[in-house]
Amino acid sequence: MEHTFRPVVSVRIFGEEKCFGPGVAQLLRRVEEKHSLRAAAISMGMAYSKAWTIIKASEKELGFDLLVSSTGGKNGGGATLSEKAMSLLAAYEQYCTDVRSYAQSEFQTRFSHILSHTP
Amino acid sequence: MEHTFRPVVSVRIFGEEKCFGPGVAQLLRRVEEKHSLRAAAISMGMAYSKAWTIIKASEKELGFDLLVSSTGGKNGGGATLSEKAMSLLAAYEQYCTDVRSYAQSEFQTRFSHILSHTP
Repeated sequence: MEHTFRPVVSVRIFGEEKCFGPGVAQLLRRVEEKHSLRAAAISMGMAYSKAWTIIKASEKELGFDLLVSSTGGKNGGGATLSEKAMSLLAAYEQYCTDVRSYAQSEFQTRFSHILSHTP
Repeated sequence: MEHTFRPVVSVRIFGEEKCFGPGVAQLLRRVEEKHSLRAAAISMGMAYSKAWTIIKASEKELGFDLLVSSTGGKNGGGATLSEKAMSLLAAYEQYCTDVRSYAQSEFQTRFSHILSHTP
């Protein structure tokens, strides 16, 4: 049995409570693609009401809007990301990449003497 | 509404599947204190059978034993950590500390222009 061991790092941002993490980030990326929170939710197999709750909870903690509604389209109008949401999403994704890169770079040194299958 | 935003970073180690993370680490620390998997599980509000399953799944992925049983004690004998478990636990905790420290040190620079409550 040979494994390659690897670190899996998750990064969340908390205010008083959790306010931003991989779930919201993925939802925002889908909104950006689909210009609709409903379509974004569906594409993730998530109920629209849950997506809406996640976005509203995040906005409340962050103190700014993540989505900008455009009225009059199909399904009662679409949605796009606010400027602050775009900045936050880009900063979060880069931050995750860099934290994971640090974690990866340290991993072999820290664990190679323990996590091997030689006796 | 003033928040101090902060990163919350969780670190897990995967082989083919998840094999080590905060739950197993906490369980091992409790075993070290209590010299018993049963007492460790109870102290965490966890069923003994669940604790046993977690340890066994981790051992299977890691390829070595985490616990050393001592027979003949109360409750069918106690348990202590194997040498490899002690090494892994110490390395994991230091690794988590250092990954979190890196994440914390980068956080203000990356997010201070976005995560503030000034308009």
